[in-house]
Amino acid sequence: MPGARARHGADSVAPLRSVKETIVRKRDGAALDEAEIRAWINGVADKTLPDYQSAALLMAIVFRGMTREETVVLTDAMIRSGRILDWTGLGRPTVDKHSTGGVGDKVSIALAPWIAACGAAVPMIAGRGLGHTGGTLDKLEAIPGFRTRLSAAEFEKQVREVGVAIAGQSEDLAPADGELYALRDVTGTVESVPLITASILSKKVASGAAGIVFDVKCGAGGFMRTREEAAGLARELVQVTGALGRKARALITRMDEPLGAEVGNAGETEEALAVLRRSAPADVTGITRALGAAMLILAGVARDRHEAEARLDQALESGEAVRSAERMVQAQGGDPRVVTDPSRLPRAPVETAVTAARGGCVTALDARAIGDLLVAMGGGRERKEDRVDPAVGIRMLRKRGDPVAPGETVALIRAHREAPEWAAAAAAAYTIGELPPEAAPIVLEEIGG
Amino acid sequence: MPGARARHGADSVAPLRSVKETIVRKRDGAALDEAEIRAWINGVADKTLPDYQSAALLMAIVFRGMTREETVVLTDAMIRSGRILDWTGLGRPTVDKHSTGGVGDKVSIALAPWIAACGAAVPMIAGRGLGHTGGTLDKLEAIPGFRTRLSAAEFEKQVREVGVAIAGQSEDLAPADGELYALRDVTGTVESVPLITASILSKKVASGAAGIVFDVKCGAGGFMRTREEAAGLARELVQVTGALGRKARALITRMDEPLGAEVGNAGETEEALAVLRRSAPADVTGITRALGAAMLILAGVARDRHEAEARLDQALESGEAVRSAERMVQAQGGDPRVVTDPSRLPRAPVETAVTAARGGCVTALDARAIGDLLVAMGGGRERKEDRVDPAVGIRMLRKRGDPVAPGETVALIRAHREAPEWAAAAAAAYTIGELPPEAAPIVLEEIGG
Repeated sequence: MPGARARHGADSVAPLRSVKETIVRKRDGAALDEAEIRAWINGVADKTLPDYQSAALLMAIVFRGMTREETVVLTDAMIRSGRILDWTGLGRPTVDKHSTGGVGDKVSIALAPWIAACGAAVPMIAGRGLGHTGGTLDKLEAIPGFRTRLSAAEFEKQVREVGVAIAGQSEDLAPADGELYALRDVTGTVESVPLITASILSKKVASGAAGIVFDVKCGAGGFMRTREEAAGLARELVQVTGALGRKARALITRMDEPLGAEVGNAGETEEALAVLRRSAPADVTGITRALGAAMLILAGVARDRHEAEARLDQALESGEAVRSAERMVQAQGGDPRVVTDPSRLPRAPVETAVTAARGGCVTALDARAIGDLLVAMGGGRERKEDRVDPAVGIRMLRKRGDPVAPGETVALIRAHREAPEWAAAAAAAYTIGELPPEAAPIVLEEIGG
Repeated sequence: MPGARARHGADSVAPLRSVKETIVRKRDGAALDEAEIRAWINGVADKTLPDYQSAALLMAIVFRGMTREETVVLTDAMIRSGRILDWTGLGRPTVDKHSTGGVGDKVSIALAPWIAACGAAVPMIAGRGLGHTGGTLDKLEAIPGFRTRLSAAEFEKQVREVGVAIAGQSEDLAPADGELYALRDVTGTVESVPLITASILSKKVASGAAGIVFDVKCGAGGFMRTREEAAGLARELVQVTGALGRKARALITRMDEPLGAEVGNAGETEEALAVLRRSAPADVTGITRALGAAMLILAGVARDRHEAEARLDQALESGEAVRSAERMVQAQGGDPRVVTDPSRLPRAPVETAVTAARGGCVTALDARAIGDLLVAMGGGRERKEDRVDPAVGIRMLRKRGDPVAPGETVALIRAHREAPEWAAAAAAAYTIGELPPEAAPIVLEEIGG
């Protein structure tokens, strides 16, 4: 602790509290001081603190919350529990993106190489799917040969040479977060804005990008159900990132229906890469462009949204974005031809039509139900140790706002056999009404640092 | 679980919830159902449930509380985690007393043999001191030779033959409580009325008495600071005991100043035994008589308070109470002569006078400060593994309401050396004012079942 104190310039010499005292203080509503938060996280990182004390403290935090200052110290302590990547001397700015996760969210796969094509480096640490939300690593692994497990040296070399890498978390980045997250998962203590903030930021800041854009999703398919909750988390993420010396912006985006037409790993990778060929659905392209513009502005590559969008368009028109994706796939062991030839991705052979029970207009398409259906089909994970089948998926031909005729095919189930029960589940995710729903933009709000 | 369900006649077949679901439900304010509470406690008792899940659930209970029904099921599950003593065929009623603990509370040592002398059996499981509150076992062990660790067979034999035994908890009574209490102690989850209730009652009900009288103390030296908090706990204890098929009453008693004149193990045992010789301070005698009367009424030995007090007086006058104490001490290996000859108890040789800084009237005597002082002197425990010195103590010659002259000796420190710093600490526990404080009874309220 003396090291930590000195580092942060605390000049008072407060008596070191026991973790039990810290638990009682948080339980009774106190704001924890820097020394006791660092003592807690040090004990987590070096495994000297019993899990039951962390569990009790986590639950007290769920009820009592944390001040901005406490969250900043907690995040900083988690970052300092491991290595912090350093990109100085790279010769170009670094920028990263984090999404809170949703159904059909395949944005990173196109966005990261696109931004690299525009002149900023993207050292992106991504995750796996769990429950109804998918994960970028699972989607990328649908590409034959693609490796997501890179050593720290491989990751750094690729970012320097290719400008972009997307890999799984290495154990030496924010290890305290890995320990705490596993504990939160089994103790009902995931749902807490300060704990979510510290968990997201510790990994992102440790991976070293100078700027981070957050995609905070709201709606039934996301982690935050309401726009107010999402905006609260977005503000906390942006403010705490700023307090840690990095630049940040956040977009609040809609996650009531799945993003794009494809849900399922290979189909999502195909759809993401189609963004770079200007042939993806408007919502996927729109959200990727909006996030990309924010990243280029944060990175200093563009001064404003207009300039950022022009730079993004230029990378598409010149083919630089496609070539950047090909270089990334090749560097990570995958077949680079998938970027322009999606037939090289695996695809389950049997399609079952999902038909509209009545005519009218799609007024809602339940993202959560579609995400759960993919898990049932073997394309997602119920437990962390489950394997996923990249070839299965759901292709949605009609989405919110589209007119449908009675009996019309609104979606296709892609599986290894005829699957009427999954088609019925997909049909049940559609709500068809008389009148078209009010139009809603995909990006609801942007929150600056 | 099927056994537990069948035992309690639940007829619905609810899906068995995971403990993680139980934690989330309690966190979100739900009342837990019988199956999930029993699953939790079964997992605690057989040590298959990780402590971190119990810790998170305990903290959620601290914040959300439990309904009366939940507390009854929790207590019952803890009781059924071990053996339940059965006193049928004893030939006389059984009754027990539990105190929430305070400074100078030596009541059990006189009360248990006194009640046995009146015709009811007292199978009493007692505890050790921790922090500023003392424990009956430590006090009894001041008697040369006295054994508080009895086997289950010894305990049962002594209750049958002598009518009274006071021993430490055996590991087969409510073992789940032992596990949970140790966890609560290090996770800041002690302070919760349902958890306190279940902990107290599981041990008391498992030790088999048909009736239980609770002494719930309130004030700075007790666990409950205000009379309202104490009354809340008392009502819960009485109601839950009733729901578990035992009779109960509770007294709310004052614990703002220490009980009696003696604090320290040998001194407290001497003072308690003096009750049986009608030579103890009025507050100790008063509270012991009030608890005794409630016990005799619960046991059916007396119909009302008048009859109960007459029976208590008769046992003193006849010498039966003294002989009952002598039999108990002898049966547990102690020197029975201490009951009438206190000089056989250990006594530290050096007395240091505590003097009044000014003249006036004692308006307050801080029980907590005196309790903490005894710990500092080695007569109490800071940690569970500490040993206590039975010979040291504080004798208070003046208490609340007593007039004092400037420089007068108000108390004596009994130690192994001159101890001016302890005398100063004791002096600081006294508040001396101009006017006498309002008189306050020792028993504030009685709560029936």
